[in-house]
Amino acid sequence: MKVDGKEMRPIWFDLKSQTVKVIDQRLLPHQLIVAELKTVDSVIEAIKKMFVRGAPLIGATGAFGVYNAIAYPNYANCGGYEYSDSDSDTKKISDKYLKDECKRIKDARPTAVNLAWGVDRVLNAALKYEKYEDRLKIALQEACAIVEEEADNCRLIGEYGYQLIKAINQNKELKLVEGKNRRINILTHCNAGWLATIEYGTATAPIYTAFDRGIDIHVWVDETRPLNQGSRLTAWELGKHGIPHTVITDNAGGHLMQHGMVDIVIVGTDRTTRTGDVANKIGTYLKALAAYDNGVPFYVALPSSTFDWSLTDGVKQIPIEERDPDEIRYVQGLDKKGNLISVLVPPEDSNAANHAFDVTPARLITGFITERGVCNAYEESILSLFPEYANI
Amino acid sequence: MKVDGKEMRPIWFDLKSQTVKVIDQRLLPHQLIVAELKTVDSVIEAIKKMFVRGAPLIGATGAFGVYNAIAYPNYANCGGYEYSDSDSDTKKISDKYLKDECKRIKDARPTAVNLAWGVDRVLNAALKYEKYEDRLKIALQEACAIVEEEADNCRLIGEYGYQLIKAINQNKELKLVEGKNRRINILTHCNAGWLATIEYGTATAPIYTAFDRGIDIHVWVDETRPLNQGSRLTAWELGKHGIPHTVITDNAGGHLMQHGMVDIVIVGTDRTTRTGDVANKIGTYLKALAAYDNGVPFYVALPSSTFDWSLTDGVKQIPIEERDPDEIRYVQGLDKKGNLISVLVPPEDSNAANHAFDVTPARLITGFITERGVCNAYEESILSLFPEYANI
Repeated sequence: MKVDGKEMRPIWFDLKSQTVKVIDQRLLPHQLIVAELKTVDSVIEAIKKMFVRGAPLIGATGAFGVYNAIAYPNYANCGGYEYSDSDSDTKKISDKYLKDECKRIKDARPTAVNLAWGVDRVLNAALKYEKYEDRLKIALQEACAIVEEEADNCRLIGEYGYQLIKAINQNKELKLVEGKNRRINILTHCNAGWLATIEYGTATAPIYTAFDRGIDIHVWVDETRPLNQGSRLTAWELGKHGIPHTVITDNAGGHLMQHGMVDIVIVGTDRTTRTGDVANKIGTYLKALAAYDNGVPFYVALPSSTFDWSLTDGVKQIPIEERDPDEIRYVQGLDKKGNLISVLVPPEDSNAANHAFDVTPARLITGFITERGVCNAYEESILSLFPEYANI
Repeated sequence: MKVDGKEMRPIWFDLKSQTVKVIDQRLLPHQLIVAELKTVDSVIEAIKKMFVRGAPLIGATGAFGVYNAIAYPNYANCGGYEYSDSDSDTKKISDKYLKDECKRIKDARPTAVNLAWGVDRVLNAALKYEKYEDRLKIALQEACAIVEEEADNCRLIGEYGYQLIKAINQNKELKLVEGKNRRINILTHCNAGWLATIEYGTATAPIYTAFDRGIDIHVWVDETRPLNQGSRLTAWELGKHGIPHTVITDNAGGHLMQHGMVDIVIVGTDRTTRTGDVANKIGTYLKALAAYDNGVPFYVALPSSTFDWSLTDGVKQIPIEERDPDEIRYVQGLDKKGNLISVLVPPEDSNAANHAFDVTPARLITGFITERGVCNAYEESILSLFPEYANI
């Protein structure tokens, strides 16, 4: 997507240096820093320390980690295995080394389903070949394919979601306020934008598409405590693309919906059951309750890879990650001198609890926007788009 | 209430200096600073800049402002009126001067119902007398009476609310988790504590009373964006009293309730209709929706002065104050050197909207805890406690 007029993605393979590069998202919106990931360790660090976040991007970064394991093998980790750096013709890495390195990458964030998926896909592709050069080539190909597929899924989500926004825009009654046309107001929570998903984003894909096709829209951006992915990342993305937006507290959505100031809510998801329960950033459930209470359509945008076809009850079956309480206690921002620092908000000796996600029951969700189209939030409707999962 | 073992209130009349003193709450929890308010202007500044906040405390501060107008009259404002500073026997201030000064105080926060009420009560008491010394004396008496009445109301709210918590505590089924007794978990939003209401607080009064009487409780403290009154003030109050508590994001309450980790929600209110709709800090509505969805009792604690008997529809009739967007964009906290500073979170050029309150419809509220007892959230039940307002 566009950043100051220049096309940019959160991850790309730099042909010149033959390395993968990512935006270090921890410093956004105040600093746009690009990090080069030249080893498996640097990939693990980027995932653990959240240079990169968002399920699809974590998966893609992990995929490039497998490439790094081959292209820039760790001599120490290769110690016991066959490996020679001296002569590229005889270069060889063992299956065991490669599998061990992949396990280390997958352990960087064990709850991220896409990470294991991305790593295993590249690993399995590479293991089909024996020769070092073949493995190197196929790993790069496969990682790049994952990136392009994710981008394409999001483009399709944008297409289908655009139809929903267009329909609201064409509903003259909804659009009229005191006889005058008004903007379509879209509310989103967290960052399910291109920073999390290569291109377009999931929740933001319909927004970008609608804006680019000339619909007059405005986005309410939940700041999304504790890590403020909304006010830091979504606001930055939308601003760089020129889309009118307003940052609000996570507390404000209900009030806005009560007063007719939200036409549609679109959020992303980290994991979705086959019955339509949605795990997403903490607070999504509260916004869904408010949307339901006020008759505001509540949509979840997702590539189908986010469905966990083995689950039928989100609240009972999806484990919720508890993260470091200091993410709540300290807030990062720019001081007056322009330095990025963290400040302590509550009393030094007060504890905090940091449940990172919650589950929104399917009954509160109007529908899903997927790369295959829009469906309702119950099993039969979901399976009508994904019939191949009916008997799993 | 206790602060490091010493009894403290957020406002008091200092006999030695004959001035009103307040805690400058903007600096809590990191600095406990006391401000002396020796003029009408200093009272207005303390209200406008939120040295003091919370409906009862704002009312009490305004009440002392009337005393200040008499005790420390502004020579400039008295210019056109009868006033002599030279000889205390002939000291006199005109009704017009006093009324004008009261209007200035009331304009400091026009939406605060208690402010106008407190100021007018002292003004009307003073106007009954002619002599300067009488006016001075009665103004001080009336302001102090307001303070003691507020404290007494909160003590009674604590008594009635305690009965609710005691009942939960005695319900063995609720208290058992895997065969073991567990703490009673109470969730609160914002700061409806003694810092806002002289003593005990409103929402916190049942908490202090239950804790002091030996019930094993734990409080989930919503941080309460944008101004973080929960993580800054409620956490500080509870900590200073030794009550176990955990700060959570405003997004977390729904998840906790889904998983049985909240036994009762108690919040305060800034304005309540005779039909039971509750205006309170933004985000209260979202927590009420979650409590309703999960069968968690949701109580609002209030002195009856907070009822606005003229209103019947909260969402339609209660105007919602929009405050400075910079309250969202900047977050205040301690830097590493221990300095209290503000940091900018979203992009410099992103707008923010700061709706300060929302309205929770009566249908989501289990009941009210008042100084006269507990009632349900509908007109007949409320009027059963306050029959004198039946025909207003």
